[in-house]
Amino acid sequence: MVGVSDRKKIRVGMVGYKFMGKAHSHAYKDVGMFFDMDADYVMRAICGRNEQGVREAAARFGWESWETDWRRLVARDDIDMVDINAPSDAHKEIALAAIANGKHVLCEKPLALNLADAREMLEAAEKAGVKHGVCFNYRFLPAVQLAKKIIDEGKIGDIYHYRATYLQDWLVDPGAPLAWRLRKEIAGSGAHGDINAHCIDLARFLIGEFDRVVGHNRTFIKERPLLAQSEGLTGRASATEKGEVTVDDATGFLADFKNGAMGVFIATRFATGRKNANTFEIHGSRGSIRWDLERLNELEVYFRDDEPELAGFRRILATESVHKYAGNWWPTGHIIGYEHGFVHIVYEFAQHIAADAPFAPTFYDGVKCQQVLEAVDLSIERGAWVRVDEL
Amino acid sequence: MVGVSDRKKIRVGMVGYKFMGKAHSHAYKDVGMFFDMDADYVMRAICGRNEQGVREAAARFGWESWETDWRRLVARDDIDMVDINAPSDAHKEIALAAIANGKHVLCEKPLALNLADAREMLEAAEKAGVKHGVCFNYRFLPAVQLAKKIIDEGKIGDIYHYRATYLQDWLVDPGAPLAWRLRKEIAGSGAHGDINAHCIDLARFLIGEFDRVVGHNRTFIKERPLLAQSEGLTGRASATEKGEVTVDDATGFLADFKNGAMGVFIATRFATGRKNANTFEIHGSRGSIRWDLERLNELEVYFRDDEPELAGFRRILATESVHKYAGNWWPTGHIIGYEHGFVHIVYEFAQHIAADAPFAPTFYDGVKCQQVLEAVDLSIERGAWVRVDEL
Amino acid sequence: MVGVSDRKKIRVGMVGYKFMGKAHSHAYKDVGMFFDMDADYVMRAICGRNEQGVREAAARFGWESWETDWRRLVARDDIDMVDINAPSDAHKEIALAAIANGKHVLCEKPLALNLADAREMLEAAEKAGVKHGVCFNYRFLPAVQLAKKIIDEGKIGDIYHYRATYLQDWLVDPGAPLAWRLRKEIAGSGAHGDINAHCIDLARFLIGEFDRVVGHNRTFIKERPLLAQSEGLTGRASATEKGEVTVDDATGFLADFKNGAMGVFIATRFATGRKNANTFEIHGSRGSIRWDLERLNELEVYFRDDEPELAGFRRILATESVHKYAGNWWPTGHIIGYEHGFVHIVYEFAQHIAADAPFAPTFYDGVKCQQVLEAVDLSIERGAWVRVDEL
Amino acid sequence: MVGVSDRKKIRVGMVGYKFMGKAHSHAYKDVGMFFDMDADYVMRAICGRNEQGVREAAARFGWESWETDWRRLVARDDIDMVDINAPSDAHKEIALAAIANGKHVLCEKPLALNLADAREMLEAAEKAGVKHGVCFNYRFLPAVQLAKKIIDEGKIGDIYHYRATYLQDWLVDPGAPLAWRLRKEIAGSGAHGDINAHCIDLARFLIGEFDRVVGHNRTFIKERPLLAQSEGLTGRASATEKGEVTVDDATGFLADFKNGAMGVFIATRFATGRKNANTFEIHGSRGSIRWDLERLNELEVYFRDDEPELAGFRRILATESVHKYAGNWWPTGHIIGYEHGFVHIVYEFAQHIAADAPFAPTFYDGVKCQQVLEAVDLSIERGAWVRVDEL
Repeated sequence: MVGVSDRKKIRVGMVGYKFMGKAHSHAYKDVGMFFDMDADYVMRAICGRNEQGVREAAARFGWESWETDWRRLVARDDIDMVDINAPSDAHKEIALAAIANGKHVLCEKPLALNLADAREMLEAAEKAGVKHGVCFNYRFLPAVQLAKKIIDEGKIGDIYHYRATYLQDWLVDPGAPLAWRLRKEIAGSGAHGDINAHCIDLARFLIGEFDRVVGHNRTFIKERPLLAQSEGLTGRASATEKGEVTVDDATGFLADFKNGAMGVFIATRFATGRKNANTFEIHGSRGSIRWDLERLNELEVYFRDDEPELAGFRRILATESVHKYAGNWWPTGHIIGYEHGFVHIVYEFAQHIAADAPFAPTFYDGVKCQQVLEAVDLSIERGAWVRVDEL
Repeated sequence: MVGVSDRKKIRVGMVGYKFMGKAHSHAYKDVGMFFDMDADYVMRAICGRNEQGVREAAARFGWESWETDWRRLVARDDIDMVDINAPSDAHKEIALAAIANGKHVLCEKPLALNLADAREMLEAAEKAGVKHGVCFNYRFLPAVQLAKKIIDEGKIGDIYHYRATYLQDWLVDPGAPLAWRLRKEIAGSGAHGDINAHCIDLARFLIGEFDRVVGHNRTFIKERPLLAQSEGLTGRASATEKGEVTVDDATGFLADFKNGAMGVFIATRFATGRKNANTFEIHGSRGSIRWDLERLNELEVYFRDDEPELAGFRRILATESVHKYAGNWWPTGHIIGYEHGFVHIVYEFAQHIAADAPFAPTFYDGVKCQQVLEAVDLSIERGAWVRVDEL
Repeated sequence: MVGVSDRKKIRVGMVGYKFMGKAHSHAYKDVGMFFDMDADYVMRAICGRNEQGVREAAARFGWESWETDWRRLVARDDIDMVDINAPSDAHKEIALAAIANGKHVLCEKPLALNLADAREMLEAAEKAGVKHGVCFNYRFLPAVQLAKKIIDEGKIGDIYHYRATYLQDWLVDPGAPLAWRLRKEIAGSGAHGDINAHCIDLARFLIGEFDRVVGHNRTFIKERPLLAQSEGLTGRASATEKGEVTVDDATGFLADFKNGAMGVFIATRFATGRKNANTFEIHGSRGSIRWDLERLNELEVYFRDDEPELAGFRRILATESVHKYAGNWWPTGHIIGYEHGFVHIVYEFAQHIAADAPFAPTFYDGVKCQQVLEAVDLSIERGAWVRVDEL
Repeated sequence: MVGVSDRKKIRVGMVGYKFMGKAHSHAYKDVGMFFDMDADYVMRAICGRNEQGVREAAARFGWESWETDWRRLVARDDIDMVDINAPSDAHKEIALAAIANGKHVLCEKPLALNLADAREMLEAAEKAGVKHGVCFNYRFLPAVQLAKKIIDEGKIGDIYHYRATYLQDWLVDPGAPLAWRLRKEIAGSGAHGDINAHCIDLARFLIGEFDRVVGHNRTFIKERPLLAQSEGLTGRASATEKGEVTVDDATGFLADFKNGAMGVFIATRFATGRKNANTFEIHGSRGSIRWDLERLNELEVYFRDDEPELAGFRRILATESVHKYAGNWWPTGHIIGYEHGFVHIVYEFAQHIAADAPFAPTFYDGVKCQQVLEAVDLSIERGAWVRVDEL
C-alpha cells in the first residue's frame, strides 16, 4: 500500500440507486476499511431520474451529491469513473457517453441488450483506453477464487463436465406483478439474461470458452398484473389490469466447450423453494468441485489422488487467511455474505486503476457472455445446435 | 394374505448370475421373510453359460438346480416365470422363447438393444397374455414411492421442471478395462442405456411422457486395455493390448414433456467422486421434491403452502410405517439399502400374478424408455431436437 | 475359504423372535450368500413362549424347528450355539444354562440387568471355554470399521474429544403405551441401557476405556397407558388404565477417558424429529471423524495435514471394495442398510469359531459397558462424578 | 422513522480497535444505510493504548478523533455512549467510569472477569439510569430471532432438551503462541468464558434460566511459545521461550434448566476441523430446532404436527422479508455474514435509546451468564453438581 497522502483518488459517479445501487454504494463505502488500497474511492455523485429518491439515496448511502440526468453526471469533470447499474436498456448510451468523456466505466451485467450493442461498447472503451469492467460479482467470492486456483493448478485435471444452475422462485406466484425485469424492451431477457448470464461468466472464468449450444425456454405464466400507475417500474400489482410477460421465465441449455467438456446450464425463476441457487459442479480427470451461492463460503472438492479408502468430497470453509480476500475480513469460520463480492470487485477495480494494470472481467467478457446468451436464443429459434462463433 | 397351504407357487427360472443375478436371487430368497405374500416363490433353477460359475451360484444363492443353456431352462415345465438378467444382447431371444412357452417374464433393463426389438417383445408378451415386467427397481424404493404419491395427490401442483442426473466415476481411470458394458454390440449403449434409462423411467413414472429431446454425448477415453483372454467378459485388464470403446461415456439431453415441463438429464461414468448419484429434482407450482440414490431413504420436499417464515425443504426419512414398504422392515430410522428395491419389485410381481392384476412397469415401459433413448441418439446425429413419437 | 464339504457346521438355536429375532434370522440366512465362510450356519431351532408366534416365525424366518421352552432348547445336543435376543431380564439365566451345556453364546445387549449378573455370565463363559459375544452390531458397519482403522493408524492423532448421541423420538407421544422397554424389572433401564449402551460400546471400541462419569436423567412422561391385556408386552394401548414408567426417557453424561479425552453422551427417546441418530464425533490432534447411523454408509473425516487451503471434512461413502465388508455387497455407491451389521457380526462369529480365534466383542465388553452404565446411574444418585473402576 | 432533522444524535466513544473494534466500527458505519433509525450514531472517538495503532484505526474505520487514555475518553462531554471492546480485564473500570459520567454503555462479553465485578457493574448502571447492553451479538441474527419466535409462540411446545456446542480449532497447533486470550489474568477464562458464554446466553435467551450445572475442563497443551516482546499481546510466537497456559482449552458441562429441560454445553478450541461451530439443537414436545453459526442464515425446524409421512426437518433460509432484519438487506436467498449481528445490535441499541425503552441483553444478562460460567467452574472444583443460584 502506498502512503495515504500519496494515494490516488478515484472520484465515482454512479447511475442507479435501487438494489444494485445499494450494493455498489456499500462496496465503495466499506472497501477501504478492510482492504489496503493504492487508490481511494471518493463517492462523488449518485444519479437517478426520481429527484426525491436519488436525494434520499445520496444521504443514506453517503454520496456527496446527486444528479437526475445521467448526461450531466458523465459530463462532470470532478468525476473519474462511472458506475452503471441503471436498468439494462440504459447501459449502452450511458457507457458510450462516459467513455467519450474519458471516464473509467464499471457496468452491471448484462452489458447491453444485445450483442451488437455490447460490441460497440467494447470497441469504444478499448479505443478510449479507459478501464472498463462488468460486474460479474460472483467471480470475486473466496470460494470461487479457490475453485479457479484449483483448476488453474491442474488439481482436478482435464475438465469433462460442467453443470450449472441458477434457481430462484420469485415468479411462481401468479400474482407477482409485471415488473421491468419481465419486459423485454427494458430487461432484454428474463432468467436467461439475468441469471444464466452469471453462470455463463463463471463457466468462462473457470474452464474457458463455449463452442456450441442448444437450448429451450418457457414463459410459464404469460400474463401478470400490471403495476399500479403510481408505482413506476417496481412496486405493487394492480388488482384489475394484466399485461403480457415478454421474457423467459426459464432457459436451459446444453453446451460443448472448446476444451471438449460437456456443459449444462439451467436458469429459472420457477424453482419453487430454491431461493438463490447459483451452483456449479465440475468434474475433471483428477477431481471435482461443487459450489452453491446459498452457502457461498463453502467449496466442496474431491481429489482422485487421495487414498482410495479416504477419498471423499471435502467441505472447505473458505474463510481461512490463505483464502483470497478472506483474511481481510474476520477470523476463521466467521462467514461473509453476498455483498462482499461487490467489495472485492471494487477493490480490484481500484487496484488495477492505480497500477494501470489489466482488470478483468472487462467489456470483452460482457461481449462473450452476450454472445453465448444470443447463441442459445438462436438455437431455440432453430431447434438445433448453434456455434457460438457464428454470432 | 391367504393361508400358506392355499398359496400359489411361482416357480422361477433365472438367466444370469453376476451382479444382477445376485441382487435378484437375494430378493427371491428374502421377500417372504418380510412381506405377507399371496404367492410364494420357488427358486427352481438358475442358468449361465459357465458351468462351474452357475453351479457355485446355485449353491450360494439357494437355487434348487442349474442349467447352462437358457433354451433348456425356458422349456422346463416345472417353471412358471423366467427372470432375465443376462447381458442385454440376450434379452430378446430369451424373452421371446420364454413367452412362447407361456412363462411370465421379468426382464432387466434395458429391455432390448433397440426399439424395434423392444416392441417385438412387448407384442409377443401381450399376445401371449403372460405377466411381463422390466426391472426398473428404483421405482420401488419408499422415498420414490412417496415422491410419486405427493405428485399424484397434487401436493406440488403443476410440474415446471424436472432435472435428473445419474453420476458415476468408475471409468475415469484410463486403466479400467474394456468390459462388455463398453462394447456396443453387447451392451447396446453406454451410460445412456445403462443409467439414463433409469432416469428416463423415473421421469415417466413420476411426471409422464416425453415430447421431444435434444442431446450430446462423449466417449472421453476412446481406447482401453482389452480384458485378458481367460477372464471372459469381466475381470482384469490386459497389460498390452487395447481395443476401441464403442459406447458413450456420458450422454446429456434436454427434454420437453407433454405436460409442458422442461427437463434435463445427465448420465455419466466420468463424474469423478460421484459414485452412484441417481438424483432427481422436480419443481411444481405448489412445491418441489429432491432425491438422491446415495441417500435413498431420504426425500426432500418443499411446500409453497407452508407459512412463509417457516417454509423450507423438509428432509423426510422415509422409514416410517406410513411409508410404503418401510413398515415391512425395521423400526423408524433404521435405514434400508440398495437391494431392497429388488425385494419390493419381486414382491409386487408375485402379488400381481396371484391377483392376476396389471403389474407395472411392463414391457410397455421398457419400450417407452427405449424410444426416448433412441430419440436422444437420433437428435445427436441430427444436431437438432427430435420428437419422441417420431420413432 | 475351505471347501464346502470340509466346512464345519454351526447349528444355531435362537431365543427370541421379535425385532431382534428377525434381524438375527436374516443374518444367518443371508450371510453365506455374500461371504466366503469357513463354517456354515444351520438354522436349527427358534424358541419363544407363544407357540403360535414362534411357529409362524420359524416358518417365515427359515428355522428348521421351534421350541417354547428355552430350557429344552439349550439342552438339545443338535445345537452348537445359542443366540439370545429375548427381553433383557432373561439373558442371564439362558446364557448360564447354555454355557453349562457347552454351547457358544451370542447375546443381545445389554448383556444383563446389572453388573453383577454380567460378571457372573462372563466368568461362566470364560471357565467353560465357549465362544461368547455381545451383539454390539454397530461396530460391524463399514464406516465404523473405517473410523476404527483411521484411529488405530494414528491418522487423527491423540484424542481430545468424543461426543456421542443416540437420539430417537418414539416416546414423545404421551399416548405411546407402557411397553416392556419402559418397565425397569424387564428392561433394566430405559434410553440409558438401550441406546447409550451402543454409544458406550462404540466409544470403548474406538478410543478406549472410561475413567469417570457424571450424569443426569429424566422421565419426562411419568405415566402411560397400560397395554391392553390381550396384547402381552407389545401392542396397543389401553384406553383407560395407566401405569408408571419406571425407566429413564433420557440420560446424558460427561466422561473422562483414561487416555485424557473428554467425552459427552446423550441418549434420549424424546428428541422430536430425530429418528435414529446414533452419532459420534471425535477430535484428535491430527484430525477428526464424524458418523451418523441415519447415513450409516458415510464417514466424515478431516485431516489437519491436508494443505491449509484445501482442508475440509471429507464425506467418504464407505462402499468401496477397499472398505471392510463393503466389497461383499454391491458395486461402489450402492448403499447398504441397518441389518447388514448383523450379517457382519454373525460372519465374524462363525469365522472365529472356525479358526478358534478370539472374537470381540465378548461378554467382557458387555461387562465393561454395564460398568459404565451403572457408574452413570450411581453418579446421578450422588450428584457427583464417579470413577468407573469403583464399581 | 422520525425525520432526519429531528433525529437524536448518539455520539459514540469506543475503547478497543482490534477484532471487535473493527466489527463494532463497521456496524456504526453501516447501520444507517440499511436501517431506518430514530437516532443517528456519530462516530466521535476511538481509544487505544498504542498511539499509532489507534490513529490508523480512526482513519481506517471512520472515527472523527482518537484517544490513548480511556479516562480522557469517558470524560469527554461530546460523547453520549461508550462502547467497550478492550480486553476483558479492563471492562469493569472503564464501564464504571463511563457510567459515573452518565454515558450509556455497550460492553463486549464477558461483561467482567468475575461475578462480583459483573454485579457491581450492573448495580452502577441501574443506579445511574443509563442504557446498558452486553454484545451477545448472536441473538441478533435472523435465524436466531426466528428460533426465538417459534419457541415463544409455542410451536415446538415444552422444551425437553437443549444441546449446544461452540467448536473451534485454532489452538490445536502446539506452536500457536501464548496470546492474551490464554492468560487468566487478562482473559478471565479460556474457551469457557470466551465461547461457552455465547452458548449460555443463547440458551437463556431461547429457553430460560439455568438451575444447576456440572462440568469438566482441560488444558490440553499446558505450555506455549511466548509472544515476541515487540508484538505486545498479539502477534508472532517467540522461537525459544515458553509460558504456561492458565486458562481452559475446553470446557463442557451438563445443565438442568428451571423449566425441567436437560442441557449440555461443549466449548473447545481443540475441535480439529471445526472452525466456528456455534450450534444449538432444541427438542420440544411439538417440534425441534437446529442452528449452526457456520451456516448462520439457515434454521432447521421440525414440527410434530406435520402429516406423519411428510414430517422432516425443514431447512429454512432466513433471508425472506418476513424474517427479522433480513428485509433490510438483500433479496431472498442472498445471504448475510457474521458482522451483520453487530449491525443489528447497534441498531436496536440506538432505537431503544431513542425511545427510552428497555433494551436487552443488559448487564443483567451479563451477570446471569457469568453466574453460570462460575457455577460450572465451581462444579469442576467440587466434582459435583452446583446450583446456579448458590452463587
